[in-house]
Amino acid sequence: MGISKIRTGARNEDGLKSASAVLRQRFGERFQTGEAIRAQHAHTTTWVPPQPPDGVLFVESKEDVKIAVRIATDHRVPIIAFGTGSSLEGQVNAPSGGFSLDFSRMDRVLDVNPEDLDCTVEPGVTREALNTHLRDTGLFFPIDPGANASIGGMTATRASGTNAVRYGTMKDNVLAVTAVTADGEEIRTARRARKSSAGYDLTRLFVGSEGTLGILTSVTLRLQGIPEEIAGGYCNFPTLQQACEAVIATIQLGIPVARIELMNALQVRACNAYSGLSLPEAPSLFLEFHGSPASVKLQSEAFGDIARESGADGFTWSANPEERSRIWKARHNVYWSAKALRPGANAIATDVCVPISRLAECVTATEADITEHGLVAPIVGHAGDGNFHVSMVLDDTDPAEVAQAEAFIERLNARALAMDGTCTGEHGIGQGKQEFLEGELGGSVEIMRQIKRSLDPLNIFNPGKIFPLD
Amino acid sequence: MGISKIRTGARNEDGLKSASAVLRQRFGERFQTGEAIRAQHAHTTTWVPPQPPDGVLFVESKEDVKIAVRIATDHRVPIIAFGTGSSLEGQVNAPSGGFSLDFSRMDRVLDVNPEDLDCTVEPGVTREALNTHLRDTGLFFPIDPGANASIGGMTATRASGTNAVRYGTMKDNVLAVTAVTADGEEIRTARRARKSSAGYDLTRLFVGSEGTLGILTSVTLRLQGIPEEIAGGYCNFPTLQQACEAVIATIQLGIPVARIELMNALQVRACNAYSGLSLPEAPSLFLEFHGSPASVKLQSEAFGDIARESGADGFTWSANPEERSRIWKARHNVYWSAKALRPGANAIATDVCVPISRLAECVTATEADITEHGLVAPIVGHAGDGNFHVSMVLDDTDPAEVAQAEAFIERLNARALAMDGTCTGEHGIGQGKQEFLEGELGGSVEIMRQIKRSLDPLNIFNPGKIFPLD
Repeated sequence: MGISKIRTGARNEDGLKSASAVLRQRFGERFQTGEAIRAQHAHTTTWVPPQPPDGVLFVESKEDVKIAVRIATDHRVPIIAFGTGSSLEGQVNAPSGGFSLDFSRMDRVLDVNPEDLDCTVEPGVTREALNTHLRDTGLFFPIDPGANASIGGMTATRASGTNAVRYGTMKDNVLAVTAVTADGEEIRTARRARKSSAGYDLTRLFVGSEGTLGILTSVTLRLQGIPEEIAGGYCNFPTLQQACEAVIATIQLGIPVARIELMNALQVRACNAYSGLSLPEAPSLFLEFHGSPASVKLQSEAFGDIARESGADGFTWSANPEERSRIWKARHNVYWSAKALRPGANAIATDVCVPISRLAECVTATEADITEHGLVAPIVGHAGDGNFHVSMVLDDTDPAEVAQAEAFIERLNARALAMDGTCTGEHGIGQGKQEFLEGELGGSVEIMRQIKRSLDPLNIFNPGKIFPLD
Repeated sequence: MGISKIRTGARNEDGLKSASAVLRQRFGERFQTGEAIRAQHAHTTTWVPPQPPDGVLFVESKEDVKIAVRIATDHRVPIIAFGTGSSLEGQVNAPSGGFSLDFSRMDRVLDVNPEDLDCTVEPGVTREALNTHLRDTGLFFPIDPGANASIGGMTATRASGTNAVRYGTMKDNVLAVTAVTADGEEIRTARRARKSSAGYDLTRLFVGSEGTLGILTSVTLRLQGIPEEIAGGYCNFPTLQQACEAVIATIQLGIPVARIELMNALQVRACNAYSGLSLPEAPSLFLEFHGSPASVKLQSEAFGDIARESGADGFTWSANPEERSRIWKARHNVYWSAKALRPGANAIATDVCVPISRLAECVTATEADITEHGLVAPIVGHAGDGNFHVSMVLDDTDPAEVAQAEAFIERLNARALAMDGTCTGEHGIGQGKQEFLEGELGGSVEIMRQIKRSLDPLNIFNPGKIFPLD
């Protein structure tokens, strides 16, 4: 598909018109078709060109979702769940038209069970709102993809982020979901027990399905105790290779780092400029340790030894919250820092993930590729998972630059796949990565299609995502 | 369905006869139809009455599996993967006849990647053989369901066991599988990257699918570093309630216990008798801690405090391998120790799992139920997960005893479901738990059926498991 090749699908104009009338009649002001609001629901923070829906329904309850699904079924029109619009591969676009279901009003925390370390939330709850809600319980929800995404969206894209190395991804932290399926009824995929062998793992099938199999109406999440102590630190290395060696040793020794993030020299430079820091502009690792004070100390010391053995230029660490937060804020702002490298330009954030033994090779080759082609594209990675991002900074109104970026993404994905990696560690397929999915998983994609056809025979759920438009 | 109600399905006699002839012609001596070998492939360690297959094919390669699947498809006959026969709910039975695929000769470790902490094995590798193979790498595969099960079988039933509380279940430890699907081709569900957002999570769909969606031909597993130090310990409590409170506090504080096992007084008595121990016959917890010596010490001390606060009668711990291994051997032998409570009797091992906040209530009520009905049925649990087993010791040739056991299992499952639990934490549905699946997951079961029909339209893969026979 590629950046310049996002297609528009066939539109069922009659169905869209009649469904629109029914939605307006049923939901009144909660159904909006103004241009601004439609545009806003196709707006994302990355390169994919917007394809606005025909209307936006602000759902307030699972009953609303059921009614919306039935209307979509009756009129054979697309229905697209919308959380906060922070997805990166076109997941909220409406290539064949249809209706956005905006979940911002379904933002209740339904249930918190501190003894079981779990909670159940409506899909529109954002991760920051959830953690604010949980503050007094001593618990937190660890998954942190950077953006203040909604829990529904994070579930649908199988999000992860900086601390997946310790706490896993959404796959590991969703205990159950409820979802409205094609017949307009709600199913619950699992009970609240921490594990189960009862039938197919529908929970994991919905996690990462990008709204193509049904519409989530609630998510039950595992929670973690807020660590007694959090310490952070950073160190820099002469080469990316050495930084990656330190990561492998850390993982192999089982040091339970909470975060271990890699930046290349250009990314550190961008962070220094954007966030007013003065870190050494060299390949760097940023770490965070969670635990009791004694355990955090043990972890930091063990990592310090590894860093030195791998050739690091010292390891600076601190349990001081302000220092830590300055560095992690810079890490969170890498996307904006990349954009700021070239004022007025846009940034394309892409992600791949490889086995960690190949991370050094993959990142080094990618950096060389960037240099060779004269691109501006800093690299930042969730190194403990072998997952890294490249932010290509470009003028996306210039077809030559777009073509160059497309060619780069193709080379990057070919490189990752050749190393037994995946075309996306955490952003999902959406529209942007479809061309790579078949190359990665071959015949498995046809099995996925069979499941899609079986659960969504009319193709109303987010058509044109994961799989190409018919 | 219940213990006495396992049904026999309709047999496609013509297909079975013609497929048998083709299999013999194609595979010669590797296809066996003798009574003893057929009986052995329906034999399991629990109550489910055996339903032998019509023949057993000893597969040696994925090509063999492809051929077998094509023959099954051509002749419309069932095909049932067989690992070691240690499943507990009738997963290897052939209620409509058909052919066992014995994987004992597909037992190669294909690939070990120490830097990535992963390996790829054929399905017939047993967990003990794998750990023997891995010994020199400093790595191990942690999942331990007790029996020396095959990795294929453990994958298919979403097995877990004593140390799931730390290392997760098969769901968390399978990175990818290859499987032969209904069209006779092999798919690969994922690459070797530690995480991915590339399309539907087919890996997790195959994990726990009990051979009903395809036949596994390899499994890629996550491995762990062998802990520098392993320490174990035990303590006993005046009441089950207090033991469970200690478990909840341990989990809430995030102490990374490797195992935290609960036994009721009768189970401890059975272990003492069977394994020649002299543990206090009271509700007890058995623990294991993994880590560096310093970390293990921290964990043990932290747990010791919790145990005392919860009313434990001391906490005895030891890093001495012999002492540890004596206690854990007793734990592994609980099934046999239960049987030995009544010589000549059989034991029915059943499992449920509840949110840990309900574990005390569920176990206490279950113990009272056992007493009230005069059953002999010790209780042992993976308490950190809220998962526990009851071993009913009975004369399974006595219909009255069988009926009493069936009624008990029904009450036990109703109790677990009423507490937002599951009818099986780790044994799977097979034939034995089908009647509880609908009660647990309602409309989700129809979604599972749609997936089954879509991926296996001729119903050749292990028919009559998870879902009732048509």
